[in-house]
Amino acid sequence: MLTLHIGNKNYSSWSMRPWVLMTQAGIAFDEVLLRFDSFDPDSQFKRQAMALSPSGTVPVLVDGDLVVWDTLAIAEYLAERFPDRALWPQAVEARALARSVCAHMHSGFGALRQHFPMNIDATLPEVGARVLREQPAVVDDLQRLQALWERLLARHDGPLLFDPFSIADAFFAPVVMRLKTYAVPVSPRVQRYMEAVLALQGVQQWVAGALAEHDFRPFEEPYRQAPDARDDGE
Amino acid sequence: MLTLHIGNKNYSSWSMRPWVLMTQAGIAFDEVLLRFDSFDPDSQFKRQAMALSPSGTVPVLVDGDLVVWDTLAIAEYLAERFPDRALWPQAVEARALARSVCAHMHSGFGALRQHFPMNIDATLPEVGARVLREQPAVVDDLQRLQALWERLLARHDGPLLFDPFSIADAFFAPVVMRLKTYAVPVSPRVQRYMEAVLALQGVQQWVAGALAEHDFRPFEEPYRQAPDARDDGE
Repeated sequence: MLTLHIGNKNYSSWSMRPWVLMTQAGIAFDEVLLRFDSFDPDSQFKRQAMALSPSGTVPVLVDGDLVVWDTLAIAEYLAERFPDRALWPQAVEARALARSVCAHMHSGFGALRQHFPMNIDATLPEVGARVLREQPAVVDDLQRLQALWERLLARHDGPLLFDPFSIADAFFAPVVMRLKTYAVPVSPRVQRYMEAVLALQGVQQWVAGALAEHDFRPFEEPYRQAPDARDDGE
Repeated sequence: MLTLHIGNKNYSSWSMRPWVLMTQAGIAFDEVLLRFDSFDPDSQFKRQAMALSPSGTVPVLVDGDLVVWDTLAIAEYLAERFPDRALWPQAVEARALARSVCAHMHSGFGALRQHFPMNIDATLPEVGARVLREQPAVVDDLQRLQALWERLLARHDGPLLFDPFSIADAFFAPVVMRLKTYAVPVSPRVQRYMEAVLALQGVQQWVAGALAEHDFRPFEEPYRQAPDARDDGE
């Protein structure tokens, strides 16, 4: 049996990826929550996570004696272990493209990730508008992201990035959550993609879990305390 | 024919990974240098890189009509395209472990990467000692890195992380260059690993290319201009 160790569903964008992937693909697994008490070296979270893997991060997938950490390695492991689920696109070209965009997501879009932390439970259009005014690097990330999605969706006329559901959609699902939370303006085609991702049962189940948590973590929501955010009346 | 687009060999740690991988594995390819003039959006480098791939980064692998970007996607693509080269370990468990450490390198060790930028041509023990004094996050990254290498090397008694050469060694080759440049103290086992990596002909050929460049890029070497670095007599 597979066991996936994850962080808080409301906040942990990296945990969301393999969870959505396995759920959507019908791969059975147990889940273990490592609650985000803090990210200090002596926090319970860090002690638990360091006991699991050398990175001290979530997600971690445990399969018998085997421990696989880091989202991309987990995705590749699952694609190999469950070939009948076709987690990557089957065509060589599409598979190389899907791997490129997932690795791009894995190492890039830093400004977007920093300024728009995932917060499924929240609706923060004012924070979104302020970030878009003040952070040109976020605007740049969003332009590249939307151009990338548009290009992929135009290859086969959507609704998902490749046809059918693949690791690529699981990798961008937390980004869809961010665009929704911060009410980022998007093109019609991107809007349709977001709706298709939000309609995936794997995503819906994760979101339901996030909304049921009610576990506010102040260090995950710095804008709730920022003086300029309070001045905006948030 | 494969074409690998890379940045300056002295500085571009991400470019080094697939270049060393292909060279060491005997995979023929052409290389194209996108010189680092600057990373501004209107720089020649950025314009060339954005024309190649949506990330605007190097490395980019072009194989006929197919464009693969981001180091991890390139590694996976090559592993599939050249199965006879066994670029990943053959055993399922070792392959999952190798993918975990490569993905960990791809998204982690941020302090190490920030404070010890790759600079093959330079010997900077004073900068290394200063960073180790002033940056506990770098010390932490180095401890985790060495613990990870020690653990992998102990599994089969080295000299490389897995047996034989794999993508994992190509992924850590630029880190070996950093430890050498900044004269980071290491354990005897890690020292032997570094020597094994430096002895790889793929690494030796990349280093020879880096030393032949003589293309000083001030934005890649901020410590050369930092007042405290000058005070140290560098």
